[in-house]
Amino acid sequence: MDDIARHADLADLRETDAAVDLSADKTGRALHEFIADMYPISRSITGDGTRRTIDLIRNYVPLTTCEVPSGLQVFDWTVPPEWNVRDAYVKNSAGERVIDFRKSNLHLLGYSIPVSAHMTLDELKPHLYSDPEKPDWIPYRTSYYEKTWGFCLPHNELLAMQEDVYEVCIDSSLAPGHLTYGDLRLLGRTSDEVLISCHICHPSLCNDNLSGIAVATALAQHLRKMELRYTYRFVFIPGTIGAITWLALNEAHVGRVKHGFVLTCAGDSGAMTYKRSRRGNTEIDRAWSYVLEQSGEPYEIQEFSPYGYDERQYCSPGFNLPIGTVMRTPFGRFAEYHSSADNLDFVRPAALYDTLKKAIAAIDVIENDACFRNEKPFCEPKLGNYGLYGGLGGLAAGDFQMGLLWVLNMSDGDHSLLDIAERSKLPWAVIKEAAAALSRAGLIKQSEPGPTN
Amino acid sequence: MDDIARHADLADLRETDAAVDLSADKTGRALHEFIADMYPISRSITGDGTRRTIDLIRNYVPLTTCEVPSGLQVFDWTVPPEWNVRDAYVKNSAGERVIDFRKSNLHLLGYSIPVSAHMTLDELKPHLYSDPEKPDWIPYRTSYYEKTWGFCLPHNELLAMQEDVYEVCIDSSLAPGHLTYGDLRLLGRTSDEVLISCHICHPSLCNDNLSGIAVATALAQHLRKMELRYTYRFVFIPGTIGAITWLALNEAHVGRVKHGFVLTCAGDSGAMTYKRSRRGNTEIDRAWSYVLEQSGEPYEIQEFSPYGYDERQYCSPGFNLPIGTVMRTPFGRFAEYHSSADNLDFVRPAALYDTLKKAIAAIDVIENDACFRNEKPFCEPKLGNYGLYGGLGGLAAGDFQMGLLWVLNMSDGDHSLLDIAERSKLPWAVIKEAAAALSRAGLIKQSEPGPTN
Amino acid sequence: MDDIARHADLADLRETDAAVDLSADKTGRALHEFIADMYPISRSITGDGTRRTIDLIRNYVPLTTCEVPSGLQVFDWTVPPEWNVRDAYVKNSAGERVIDFRKSNLHLLGYSIPVSAHMTLDELKPHLYSDPEKPDWIPYRTSYYEKTWGFCLPHNELLAMQEDVYEVCIDSSLAPGHLTYGDLRLLGRTSDEVLISCHICHPSLCNDNLSGIAVATALAQHLRKMELRYTYRFVFIPGTIGAITWLALNEAHVGRVKHGFVLTCAGDSGAMTYKRSRRGNTEIDRAWSYVLEQSGEPYEIQEFSPYGYDERQYCSPGFNLPIGTVMRTPFGRFAEYHSSADNLDFVRPAALYDTLKKAIAAIDVIENDACFRNEKPFCEPKLGNYGLYGGLGGLAAGDFQMGLLWVLNMSDGDHSLLDIAERSKLPWAVIKEAAAALSRAGLIKQSEPGPTN
Repeated sequence: MDDIARHADLADLRETDAAVDLSADKTGRALHEFIADMYPISRSITGDGTRRTIDLIRNYVPLTTCEVPSGLQVFDWTVPPEWNVRDAYVKNSAGERVIDFRKSNLHLLGYSIPVSAHMTLDELKPHLYSDPEKPDWIPYRTSYYEKTWGFCLPHNELLAMQEDVYEVCIDSSLAPGHLTYGDLRLLGRTSDEVLISCHICHPSLCNDNLSGIAVATALAQHLRKMELRYTYRFVFIPGTIGAITWLALNEAHVGRVKHGFVLTCAGDSGAMTYKRSRRGNTEIDRAWSYVLEQSGEPYEIQEFSPYGYDERQYCSPGFNLPIGTVMRTPFGRFAEYHSSADNLDFVRPAALYDTLKKAIAAIDVIENDACFRNEKPFCEPKLGNYGLYGGLGGLAAGDFQMGLLWVLNMSDGDHSLLDIAERSKLPWAVIKEAAAALSRAGLIKQSEPGPTN
Repeated sequence: MDDIARHADLADLRETDAAVDLSADKTGRALHEFIADMYPISRSITGDGTRRTIDLIRNYVPLTTCEVPSGLQVFDWTVPPEWNVRDAYVKNSAGERVIDFRKSNLHLLGYSIPVSAHMTLDELKPHLYSDPEKPDWIPYRTSYYEKTWGFCLPHNELLAMQEDVYEVCIDSSLAPGHLTYGDLRLLGRTSDEVLISCHICHPSLCNDNLSGIAVATALAQHLRKMELRYTYRFVFIPGTIGAITWLALNEAHVGRVKHGFVLTCAGDSGAMTYKRSRRGNTEIDRAWSYVLEQSGEPYEIQEFSPYGYDERQYCSPGFNLPIGTVMRTPFGRFAEYHSSADNLDFVRPAALYDTLKKAIAAIDVIENDACFRNEKPFCEPKLGNYGLYGGLGGLAAGDFQMGLLWVLNMSDGDHSLLDIAERSKLPWAVIKEAAAALSRAGLIKQSEPGPTN
Repeated sequence: MDDIARHADLADLRETDAAVDLSADKTGRALHEFIADMYPISRSITGDGTRRTIDLIRNYVPLTTCEVPSGLQVFDWTVPPEWNVRDAYVKNSAGERVIDFRKSNLHLLGYSIPVSAHMTLDELKPHLYSDPEKPDWIPYRTSYYEKTWGFCLPHNELLAMQEDVYEVCIDSSLAPGHLTYGDLRLLGRTSDEVLISCHICHPSLCNDNLSGIAVATALAQHLRKMELRYTYRFVFIPGTIGAITWLALNEAHVGRVKHGFVLTCAGDSGAMTYKRSRRGNTEIDRAWSYVLEQSGEPYEIQEFSPYGYDERQYCSPGFNLPIGTVMRTPFGRFAEYHSSADNLDFVRPAALYDTLKKAIAAIDVIENDACFRNEKPFCEPKLGNYGLYGGLGGLAAGDFQMGLLWVLNMSDGDHSLLDIAERSKLPWAVIKEAAAALSRAGLIKQSEPGPTN
């Protein structure tokens, strides 16, 4: 029994369909608990917080921790010094911590340099960040590349601060060290890769992006139990600089990536959103669109734009990878975004489970998509001869019967199962089963492994 | 005077436009009467009923009866034994026929094997078919390839049947014989063919498909009077096995088929429906879409699906012929479908005439479509020089004037008259007349016979 | 100080943005005054009226008057004899001018032959044109190529005419002379041309087309002050025969025309209309669509049709130039069209200014459109290194920031700035500035001058 087996299975979906609600409930709760475990950790683009987060992920899947030294040139960027924080506060003259990093790591401006000083409120104010439009929440702010320091606090608390001489302490270190990311590879039958990426650099913010980390971990755990066609690459990386670093280190092999998606904001109660890759209509784009359409639930498909998460790097023109972005409510469209209100209450077990379930469905499409060739293309074959037809005529065809007809009709070598599924609007399970039955009957033969090879 | 001339002209459309209502009325009634003549005949995929039906069609057009022997292998299928019925009934112990084939041939399950037996109601029931959702109608059921027997009856009559010992008699024969179909060829200037197909295998069901047979017969009669560009091939065949047989026997020549359509459910009072060919945007698909759009009446265009009528065979991937399906209300969307309620009241003279008129219009498009080349392509020619322009300036152009401008402007060798008609949204008659006038004036010259050759 | 400088600047748009209302007001009034100057002149497709109109245009821009002799063969047409009118009237027996050319030049049927006669009302009537649907307005009618004469008058005045013996006098001359047009070339860095064409053949009609003449003149005046990429060709020509003549004379060089538009009906208070070129999606078509969409105001995009203004000639299949048509309310859609109600009240200063402003915007697009190549295409460049990024993270990007990201992401050599503008939906100024900033920073390099060369 290996270490991992001692931990809960985040994607224990083996129950029967009839018990799917139970499974949904159990899985949703397990995902939420995992988020709760990661929540208190102070994370940034470097530092011990990312290491501790990767260690928590390793409780479920055997990922590798990669350490990249500060100062390494990665394309147009440089890996920054490592930032760690022991403590940070602003004390009033009565010695009370009026702003306290220990209460919420959001209070500290990300990458603040060390400070130890006394100052008046007027001297302090240029270093205080608040959001007057959401006056009760701590905003999330960073200054990775401009050396400064600051504190973030609810606007109402800022207004309540009195004239005083404040003690300001930021016990942080900013020194050569490493950028840390987690990398997990699940070997498939081919070396073609599916890349699933989520950022791990945000501190105590749940939807953005502990939710993405949790769902990606569960997805990896689920895929580990399967016999896979593709090799899966899960990367748990700091946003922007992490993705850039990963691409720089993997540049030679990135051509293997045939599909992929960025996973973020995966736990709020809004509808699913899929943002297309820069190419716009790759197989992963089509698989996600099909899965969301088939779900019968509300969803949104967004065209690519060069603003957002790490698809910005994966879809930069030099790489132009077939990688989309999977979200529920897109960043910036929920009020809680980048504030202390993006907390454990904001992410819901049912939503986390739903994102996971749909990711599994989209992967089922790309795992099983293929082109077949009808071996009896002149007229319909007599399905009754192969045990594939009911005897009585005059009644309308059911879904499976329609699946057989669609797969036979469209399997001319030019149409993949996903093409057929899109055009027939039949469920993926029906198309897959029809293709399997026709294949067993010798009526179709796989002509190529699919449009991606 | 040949035999045919003694019969009514189903498509006597020679009256002037002003008298079109009279012509419509007369033609509609003639079509309905033809359906009434065919209605009582017991038809199936083989047997004397198809022969008698073809004989009735021969009263109007000189078609050939083709007899294909049972047992012939046609692609994945075998021509079945021939089925004929002399009588069939279920009698109660009082000797009354409670189910009687002579009252409606729908009462007998198609291809029932011979039976002569006495049995209790419980023993009989597995052989009785009814439709609880339409309890007053006899459903239409068949069992061509699974040897069994049965009776169909209204659900209310089934419920009313008493415990009794019933005499069951099916005096049918199922023996080597022939599959019969009718084939008519109208020679045109080219050997390129237009295939018009309708199924003749349904017993006393009017819309599906005596209506298609009647309209196809009238269409053939109409085309016989014309000088034709294409060779027209009308096939009156049993559904599925008949189309498969025809394709097997004509495989070598099927490449000649440049356009075509299946004609079915042509007489109900619903709006017209055109189902595209598998290729999706062939000239026949475009011609029908244009004709229905121009009609100003409601209509529906359906994408291809591999379920329906004999387009399933013509559009199987090995053939992939440019053949659509012409219907009014699609099968399965009218409650009367495949039941005794699809009777003489359900099909309407006006609807039959309307389908015929639109089929003639669609054929007029493909007969006359062609690419022309503007002989004076630099600026507009001075139409007044050719008697094609009114003298007074300052007024808006009429339809014919617009037709001249459109044909001149688009006739660059790449656009056919149908392209121009679609883009200009002008009536076909206007485009055709404009092209004729410009041709006579030497302003355009036919560059190719059209996109199909 | 050259002659031109002494006249008002029709497009004095040098005021700051803050003062744009003042500028709009001043420019709009200047345009309207210019129309008022041209309004009284009697114009036709030939004659002194066109010369005097071109002379008025020359007050603002240094255009060339071109004189083409009557009788010259131009494609399928012949340059007609020159038509001039000294006087024309119908006098009643009391000697009163009941129809008087001096009151409105619309009263005379265009190209009327000389007449001097006395006649009864019944003899006169076949020569009187009125519009019963707009009984108070004089309709505009011509008969260029059929030798006849006539008078146009309000229908109510026609009804009021008494039985009498009328004196009819048309003191016109129809004799070999010239067709006159104005041609202005503004040299740019390349010999590729932009053609802007407007017809000058209509008499006292303001929207159709003194408005087009005025806006084109102002546009030329504006472009004269700029350093231009393209060479601009403004043609002020009689409709149809003028455009045909110009094309015949310039046939050898017409391949230089890379973009262009016909300018007409530019001053009514309706929304803007852009009619696409025959090609349908050229750069000028896309530039105008983008500019109108960005305006946030109502507009209409029309597909090409071969009826309208001189786009009929420019877009004839032999030329097929990338030339659209710019209008406000399309001809025939405003009641005042081709009648005396298309007067100085019907065209509005604000509308004239608005058309001019949008034409300048569309030209700004084609002047600046180009393809760039991202010099650092692997991942995003670190914009902060080039002074192109604010230091503080966690906030949403502004328009300029989005412009930088879009230009970087799409600049793969295949997408022009207009492609990027369309896809990003950002204002043109933002895309242009972003490209300029990235270019200065060395992050992008122009790969080609744009899709047109």
